[in-house]
Amino acid sequence: MKMAALRWVLLVAFLVAAGHGAEASRIRHYRWEVKYEYRSPDCFRKLVITINGQSPGPPILAQQGDTVVVDLKNSLHTENVAIHWHGIRQIGTPWSDGTAGVTQCPILPGETFTYKFVVDKPGTYMYHSHYGMQRMGGLYGSIEVAVADGVQEPFSYDAVYSLLLNDWYHKSTTEISTDISTVRFEMDGMDDMGGMGGMGGMGGMGGMGGMATMGGDPQSLLIEGRGRYNCSSMDSMGGSCNMTNPECAPHFITVTPGKVYRLRIGNLASTSSLSFEIEGHDMTVVEADSNYVEPFTLKSLYTYPGETYSVLFKANQDSRRNYWISTNIALSESSTPTGVAILNYDSNPSRQAPATMPPAGPSRGDVAAGLAQSLAIKAHRDHVIRPPRRTDRLITLLITQNTINGFLRWSVNNISLVLPQTPHLIALNEKYAKRASNSTPMLPDVYFPSDYDIFRPPPHRKTSCGTSVYHLKFGSVVDVILQNANTMYPNSSELHPWHLHGHDFWVLGYGLGLFDPSKDSSKLNLVDPIMKNTLPLFPFGWAALRFVADNPGVWIFHCHIDPDLFLGMGVIFEEGVDRVGNLPKSIRGCGQSKY
Amino acid sequence: MKMAALRWVLLVAFLVAAGHGAEASRIRHYRWEVKYEYRSPDCFRKLVITINGQSPGPPILAQQGDTVVVDLKNSLHTENVAIHWHGIRQIGTPWSDGTAGVTQCPILPGETFTYKFVVDKPGTYMYHSHYGMQRMGGLYGSIEVAVADGVQEPFSYDAVYSLLLNDWYHKSTTEISTDISTVRFEMDGMDDMGGMGGMGGMGGMGGMGGMATMGGDPQSLLIEGRGRYNCSSMDSMGGSCNMTNPECAPHFITVTPGKVYRLRIGNLASTSSLSFEIEGHDMTVVEADSNYVEPFTLKSLYTYPGETYSVLFKANQDSRRNYWISTNIALSESSTPTGVAILNYDSNPSRQAPATMPPAGPSRGDVAAGLAQSLAIKAHRDHVIRPPRRTDRLITLLITQNTINGFLRWSVNNISLVLPQTPHLIALNEKYAKRASNSTPMLPDVYFPSDYDIFRPPPHRKTSCGTSVYHLKFGSVVDVILQNANTMYPNSSELHPWHLHGHDFWVLGYGLGLFDPSKDSSKLNLVDPIMKNTLPLFPFGWAALRFVADNPGVWIFHCHIDPDLFLGMGVIFEEGVDRVGNLPKSIRGCGQSKY
Repeated sequence: MKMAALRWVLLVAFLVAAGHGAEASRIRHYRWEVKYEYRSPDCFRKLVITINGQSPGPPILAQQGDTVVVDLKNSLHTENVAIHWHGIRQIGTPWSDGTAGVTQCPILPGETFTYKFVVDKPGTYMYHSHYGMQRMGGLYGSIEVAVADGVQEPFSYDAVYSLLLNDWYHKSTTEISTDISTVRFEMDGMDDMGGMGGMGGMGGMGGMGGMATMGGDPQSLLIEGRGRYNCSSMDSMGGSCNMTNPECAPHFITVTPGKVYRLRIGNLASTSSLSFEIEGHDMTVVEADSNYVEPFTLKSLYTYPGETYSVLFKANQDSRRNYWISTNIALSESSTPTGVAILNYDSNPSRQAPATMPPAGPSRGDVAAGLAQSLAIKAHRDHVIRPPRRTDRLITLLITQNTINGFLRWSVNNISLVLPQTPHLIALNEKYAKRASNSTPMLPDVYFPSDYDIFRPPPHRKTSCGTSVYHLKFGSVVDVILQNANTMYPNSSELHPWHLHGHDFWVLGYGLGLFDPSKDSSKLNLVDPIMKNTLPLFPFGWAALRFVADNPGVWIFHCHIDPDLFLGMGVIFEEGVDRVGNLPKSIRGCGQSKY
Repeated sequence: MKMAALRWVLLVAFLVAAGHGAEASRIRHYRWEVKYEYRSPDCFRKLVITINGQSPGPPILAQQGDTVVVDLKNSLHTENVAIHWHGIRQIGTPWSDGTAGVTQCPILPGETFTYKFVVDKPGTYMYHSHYGMQRMGGLYGSIEVAVADGVQEPFSYDAVYSLLLNDWYHKSTTEISTDISTVRFEMDGMDDMGGMGGMGGMGGMGGMGGMATMGGDPQSLLIEGRGRYNCSSMDSMGGSCNMTNPECAPHFITVTPGKVYRLRIGNLASTSSLSFEIEGHDMTVVEADSNYVEPFTLKSLYTYPGETYSVLFKANQDSRRNYWISTNIALSESSTPTGVAILNYDSNPSRQAPATMPPAGPSRGDVAAGLAQSLAIKAHRDHVIRPPRRTDRLITLLITQNTINGFLRWSVNNISLVLPQTPHLIALNEKYAKRASNSTPMLPDVYFPSDYDIFRPPPHRKTSCGTSVYHLKFGSVVDVILQNANTMYPNSSELHPWHLHGHDFWVLGYGLGLFDPSKDSSKLNLVDPIMKNTLPLFPFGWAALRFVADNPGVWIFHCHIDPDLFLGMGVIFEEGVDRVGNLPKSIRGCGQSKY
């Protein structure tokens, strides 16, 4: 790295000027207030959950080894909140993971909760609400952790920008969560539902499940919290919409010809797999989920909800004009318009819109292209962390769509995740009597009925709710095979980005169809696999990952599509909970922990 | 009472048939689930907070001396809840009063909380959320407590119906609470604001404060949860609105010619003083806030939010047609249309709308008529409970509109009420260290700066927030004089219905202008005052009440207009909190009570 990003230069300059020693620079203290405010991120005015008035919230800027402290005041009037620090492993601080029902009680209105954790690994992270579906309401932001002093990254650049990608719905989060809680499975009505035509077969993604339950596509896509809704559309819901509102002017980044830039890209969309392009500029992928990637170049980057990437690009095009930065819904048909920002060459007006059309992204149905990108991501040759050669436990998770009382749910090995009143971390650490858990169905390591065909709707529709805890032997090596399947609707399977808390895992492989141990096991990458915290499970496909259960705590592993988690798509891993020690009192107050 | 209401006959018949003894009949056990559901109470579809699918929630039907048990499951996704049993004194069970921040921590999503209390006094009661402004979202219902076996009421009737009155807004509660939290006081903009014209002077009620902050008048008025919004209006906010939806067909009650009916009327409007009429039929007021009234007859009944009444009427009109039952916003100008139900004479189709226009109610500006009705309400001659002759403590509460950081607030003796994180009942009963309370301003028994003129905007705009606790000597007699004043806007004062928890109080008197002890004290009614739990404080007026502080607990005394309480209009009375004994653990979990 020849020259640090300007913001880091300024930060360091400030710290030096202020006379802080190395010790003092290690605490990054934020004071945040969460509340509802009216905002027009895509020109349509609605209530947004803000942090200190902002959505996305203030970026957290830290350096490897720093301690981040966030005093979070909940100024919502009747809603609780909890914030997850996505990608931060919370080693030694499992109570700061911010997952309501798993690692803490939710933060009540009026209360201030302090999150405190060490950012031990440089990289590109994010934060967002992990309570209900509040992330959809705008409660999210970015975390950048710079390398420690004197550490070289395996690439160099002149400056860095952060670009958070998101999708945006005009309904309130309460409306959407009510909608998706009450989707009845009606085979009779299927022919009337859109999104199915010509999408059958292996690569097809039906537009039925998540999207249909959401009441359709998102209204817009946001880059750094800014999007553009066509206010003249019929779908304006009668609210206030003003396309000249400066709040929805596109975000821009300014570049100098000849310089190289790092973009930290995070996908915090609620439902959308996204492609990302910079008009006329190639990008080189150098980081994925805060792990260094053996560089490769592409024109369009696929990103799935929960993933982060760093890409480098050189400002090497005609500098007399600006260029579009664009994001599109990827791998499925959608009516959502392209989300844009502006790449501004510094000799032009910063907000000058290019005369060109924004890039429309790759072909929507090309799942093979998405799979190829994911397969291409390997650990950087100088940063390979070799996985253990053998596993101690293999857990195969079959992801299915089912019903409970006629309402759609998602299941993992036929159990649909519900979170308990007493957060798992508290209940397990303090060995509460498990009154309810005796009646909770056991989650098996493998579940695959003999009549199951992943290419057909599930033969057995009904599922049960459960708390879905896997107890892992501390320090053991765990493999997980995620197996996708057909939804309740014929010829339909959806992409699910799975995110593991508390860990990076090795991505051992991906494939389409049913995982075949005899055939596929030998193809797993044990040589130079990338480590990630989120990976895509492709439609009708499988994914294999490995991790070491060496981080004492209780960690959720779940699909990062908000409605999918909401409807049960996740499991819980407990490891070494006895080693956690005394829990902070501040995480208590719900379920049995109020006594 | 010649013949009990049909529902009671059926209930008794059921209990007898089921072989329940007298003992068994004393427990009324309800299991409720609270959640959001789409409803169209006034033909406009929006999210409503329902109980077991209903809004208003299921009526509670009990008999004097019964124990009511409600297992309340909160199935909202991110919002807490608490339910107050309005008018029930909670003698011996102050932790069941359901006032979040005062008597309990709020009930978290997923949790089930059990309310248990004795209904020791027959009458007409209500229940509603006492958390944030959720009552506006539809979380309310009625409670009827019949007299004990063998007890005669001082009037008779053939059947009884319950009619809950409410106002209805199309915005979500979250939107409204955000709106009213962010109203800036802008003198410059005043001329543009409506509702002021020709309303100056003593009897005038400016349309500024509560109404302006709410974003205008309610969209409709509901009777038993049903209203009628003109879907062709421009104000439909783009949502789904269908005037043929059976959900918004008017409520009806069926009568037989010659019979006498009791109507139990409750006003749970969020903001609206209401008049109530039965076209062509006189009504005799016999009960107010569950206390017997010396009967008097009227054509139109004024009711203020938080009040209940029973009226009798005889089905003595032409039985070949139906009649309108109507409610209108009273005492202030409003664009809200008349709310209607149908009085159905049993020979006609029950839903046949009368060809006449619904009664429009009394003249909107006639505060004198409202005052006259309140002054006319005395205790029934055979049910007079004489108040103590002398008081031990006189507290004068000056109600003013002020600002904090430029935002509108309401104050009582210049303190704007905020509720603490640790509910008062827990903090005071368990003698928690009052960390914050040292910095809380003391609420004086009297506050009246020498330059204060109640007919002008407050000379000092600024107010402070406080927890506003009055510690009352147990068993002492307490008088409260409520003194209304001009709002921040010239020639504007608003009606505030004040509701006391844990008590009935004697209504000693009302007047207009500044209370003058030398002149007005002698006019107070110590002979046959009605006891109530809610009384109207008229614009620019005063009201005087007396109660005995003999119910161990902590009780809020507040304006029952939702936005007014939300912006600080209330105080807390503590009495005999040391006598309460051990509190149930279920009310804990917030503030210091989570440890």
